[in-house]
Amino acid sequence: MLVDCSDRPGLVHQITGVLFRANCNVLMNHEYADAEAGRFFMRTEFVGGANAGAMEKELKGLLPIDARIRLTQPGPRRLAVLVSKEHHCVADILIRCAFGELDATVAGVISNHRDLEPLVAKFDVPFHYCTHEGVLREEHERRLQKLIEAMKADYVVLAKYMRILGKEFVSHYPHRMINIHHSFLPAFVGARPYQQAFERGVKVIGATAHFVTEQLDEGPIIVQQVIPVDHSHSPQELSRAGRDVEQMALARSLRLVLEDRVFLNGNRTVIFD
Amino acid sequence: MLVDCSDRPGLVHQITGVLFRANCNVLMNHEYADAEAGRFFMRTEFVGGANAGAMEKELKGLLPIDARIRLTQPGPRRLAVLVSKEHHCVADILIRCAFGELDATVAGVISNHRDLEPLVAKFDVPFHYCTHEGVLREEHERRLQKLIEAMKADYVVLAKYMRILGKEFVSHYPHRMINIHHSFLPAFVGARPYQQAFERGVKVIGATAHFVTEQLDEGPIIVQQVIPVDHSHSPQELSRAGRDVEQMALARSLRLVLEDRVFLNGNRTVIFD
Amino acid sequence: MLVDCSDRPGLVHQITGVLFRANCNVLMNHEYADAEAGRFFMRTEFVGGANAGAMEKELKGLLPIDARIRLTQPGPRRLAVLVSKEHHCVADILIRCAFGELDATVAGVISNHRDLEPLVAKFDVPFHYCTHEGVLREEHERRLQKLIEAMKADYVVLAKYMRILGKEFVSHYPHRMINIHHSFLPAFVGARPYQQAFERGVKVIGATAHFVTEQLDEGPIIVQQVIPVDHSHSPQELSRAGRDVEQMALARSLRLVLEDRVFLNGNRTVIFD
Amino acid sequence: MLVDCSDRPGLVHQITGVLFRANCNVLMNHEYADAEAGRFFMRTEFVGGANAGAMEKELKGLLPIDARIRLTQPGPRRLAVLVSKEHHCVADILIRCAFGELDATVAGVISNHRDLEPLVAKFDVPFHYCTHEGVLREEHERRLQKLIEAMKADYVVLAKYMRILGKEFVSHYPHRMINIHHSFLPAFVGARPYQQAFERGVKVIGATAHFVTEQLDEGPIIVQQVIPVDHSHSPQELSRAGRDVEQMALARSLRLVLEDRVFLNGNRTVIFD
Repeated sequence: MLVDCSDRPGLVHQITGVLFRANCNVLMNHEYADAEAGRFFMRTEFVGGANAGAMEKELKGLLPIDARIRLTQPGPRRLAVLVSKEHHCVADILIRCAFGELDATVAGVISNHRDLEPLVAKFDVPFHYCTHEGVLREEHERRLQKLIEAMKADYVVLAKYMRILGKEFVSHYPHRMINIHHSFLPAFVGARPYQQAFERGVKVIGATAHFVTEQLDEGPIIVQQVIPVDHSHSPQELSRAGRDVEQMALARSLRLVLEDRVFLNGNRTVIFD
Repeated sequence: MLVDCSDRPGLVHQITGVLFRANCNVLMNHEYADAEAGRFFMRTEFVGGANAGAMEKELKGLLPIDARIRLTQPGPRRLAVLVSKEHHCVADILIRCAFGELDATVAGVISNHRDLEPLVAKFDVPFHYCTHEGVLREEHERRLQKLIEAMKADYVVLAKYMRILGKEFVSHYPHRMINIHHSFLPAFVGARPYQQAFERGVKVIGATAHFVTEQLDEGPIIVQQVIPVDHSHSPQELSRAGRDVEQMALARSLRLVLEDRVFLNGNRTVIFD
Repeated sequence: MLVDCSDRPGLVHQITGVLFRANCNVLMNHEYADAEAGRFFMRTEFVGGANAGAMEKELKGLLPIDARIRLTQPGPRRLAVLVSKEHHCVADILIRCAFGELDATVAGVISNHRDLEPLVAKFDVPFHYCTHEGVLREEHERRLQKLIEAMKADYVVLAKYMRILGKEFVSHYPHRMINIHHSFLPAFVGARPYQQAFERGVKVIGATAHFVTEQLDEGPIIVQQVIPVDHSHSPQELSRAGRDVEQMALARSLRLVLEDRVFLNGNRTVIFD
Repeated sequence: MLVDCSDRPGLVHQITGVLFRANCNVLMNHEYADAEAGRFFMRTEFVGGANAGAMEKELKGLLPIDARIRLTQPGPRRLAVLVSKEHHCVADILIRCAFGELDATVAGVISNHRDLEPLVAKFDVPFHYCTHEGVLREEHERRLQKLIEAMKADYVVLAKYMRILGKEFVSHYPHRMINIHHSFLPAFVGARPYQQAFERGVKVIGATAHFVTEQLDEGPIIVQQVIPVDHSHSPQELSRAGRDVEQMALARSLRLVLEDRVFLNGNRTVIFD
């Protein structure tokens, strides 16, 4: 159960009271109150408590009016994965889903290029080629949307999808679309970050997994990972090192999201890990 | 407030109820249940609630019989720091205490050597020279104990104190004595860990801050930090790199202990940071 | 070109002289002298210099009698990968070889279990089932050896192969067999390292990629990587976190070995990266 | 000896030849060629070779016309340290210099505030109060410059000096002025980086030690270090964590500079560590 609402005294006592009376056995509890924003966040893992609907109703009655309550069950979610030509992130996701390291099913992979079709086929996952050439962006994005809909995807993962997506498209997946950005945001926003990093002579590079919002590269950050580099790394070698961090950061962010550990707090995240 | 006791359903609800009824305003809550050991840990930061004694009594009545309840106030604790010849850890502690980065006062520094007397004097902290030469170990440790007692120290910090302490001495400071061990325990137990690390050709070295128990180097670990190294590091250079990690690990463990964030769970720690 | 020999003044001048006179264009040079052992190591990447045999001969005449000289060409090496039931390391190697991230071909995968056969088949790599049941260890290892020989493997990779190999078998692959050890050696030698790590309450776990020698877990270390953990990690979660570090450490060590960046210096390595 | 010049075949052979003929015994050699910029860098540690002037002259005759040759002796350099109100970086430098961990003498500390005078006095180092109030910036900087001159400082260290320095002032210390920037450049350029980091919800913060050039925060980076953070860090806690990284990054950059391990390569550095 994930609850977030305006903060006020007694919330933990009230919420745990509902769980206790419903005979739920709490396995793990996490709370956080953002003092500045005056907002309270709580995540509870529990077993038992047959009547979820009744519990949710009771909580709604007790908690502040702005409370958001999510009661979820563990179990594989469905992912739509969008890619372009780079293999490393989608390969890692396919492996992790195939072996149960991520509690998810890849419902399909969509790409504007054919390069990764053979890889995806190995894992008996549908590959949808959807070119952006010769079609208007709006039309292209409508096609993507239709494909995602047909997959009944719970989450959309941009696993090195190298095209910018329009506001209208993005608006259909609020907090359900995760991107891996090839830099340690907010540094090196935009294209060719490893070339930029090389030119600036940085000594550490990183990658950022974040929710996609209408503002390009500005969505709430889920995971950031870094790796030390030095002068002897060419842009190509920075890029190779970057691929490893990208892959790890995206996998970690997906685990957190799929285990329902991520809250939104304005443009920031609250993560109970 | 820190509470730990046997785990059972409803504990969070009960404890937060006591706080709520006493008009306490909870700032932050952390809980953890060790499923294997069946033990529950909870740390609550709160303001208000005038009558601490009454609250503690009420909690004792409600909670399992084996409950340990600690109600502490923030405010500077007193440290007795034991050193030998190496300066880096004690210098760091003196600076951090002098500038309020650690919420503590160095009540005195005790050493079996005179090397660090000038450094300690700079900070207007008493320096006690207590040689181990020409006295039996039991007698030496009795003298140490007397000095520590006179300081009214809350915690004893072994900041590169290079002599082994006897069980009798150690038994007076259960979970109140913190040591920085110059290795990434449990590797390289014992003397000359950097020479050992060099000979084994490790690619990472580390330091471990832990509570001191009767078993040498076997007490509950509070903090471990690491740093990458390579073949070009001589034992001397490993040692220099090690000093930086030791200093950081010890400072971090002291902050955690002084902020009452550390529980003991058998020979392990539970840390809410 | 990799050269190592007893150290003495003028070696760099002599070696670079041979390259210069042979019209080689040096791209990158690395040297290291181990002062304690009195040994010199040099790695040179160059283009040009048609007559490798003549160069090697000239160097042999100039350098100390104990000099080892290796002239290698970049180009895919052949790997024999031994596995048991865990997929993560071999999956990562298969992906990296398939996409040219490692300059190698997986010549075959050998296992004492059938679990990973479907995964390996996806990558069109031969899978050899070679059970250890009902055969003597010597006979089992002879079968392994025959399989490896038939693959014409340059390197043998133990990618979570969970059986101990005999001295006789190991002796056939001096510095050509790489193992990933599921701990931050020399800590937690032996079985169930994550259970051991949990019980000791460590705050950092790691993995070690090393050459296999006759002494179990005692061979020269190539790569060590670490990841921070805390009290909330169960042995299972430590193990999951460990899999990620194992995979990264093994991949990195393979890259270093395949790019001829690793020297042996007694039981340690010298690595020019 | 540090040499950098246009790259061409045979440079290592020529330079080591000069050293060999002068009876120098090379302890350690590092070279790097920047293929893109066509520039060659070499650092050699050696003993012997009495006549440095003759060697330099011979090298000048052999090497490309644009060669820069520096022959330096180990031995304490003189530091002028500029501070404002924050103590952590200057305290660390004072300790390290006092105990020989940095091969340098703090020739004096200059500040536009009186806060740190007592700390500096403890170490018997002159403290110069030089207010910026009531004087024009040009005049203030002329006074700073005079103080630095009087100290005969080899390097100027901005150890949390919180005022922007003018181009004219900066131009007197090319590659001799080192700043610690309280962010992981190029992210969060400018003031209040920890507030910015908090608002962006980053999961890693860092610090950057760099040479000061006329472009604010744009000079060549020497060291970058990072530390993971999460949603529970307030701006104040980010700032506290940041102080530790700042201190370590600045200390490390000073060690590298004082050991003559840092080259400039355009706006980047080449570092042989």
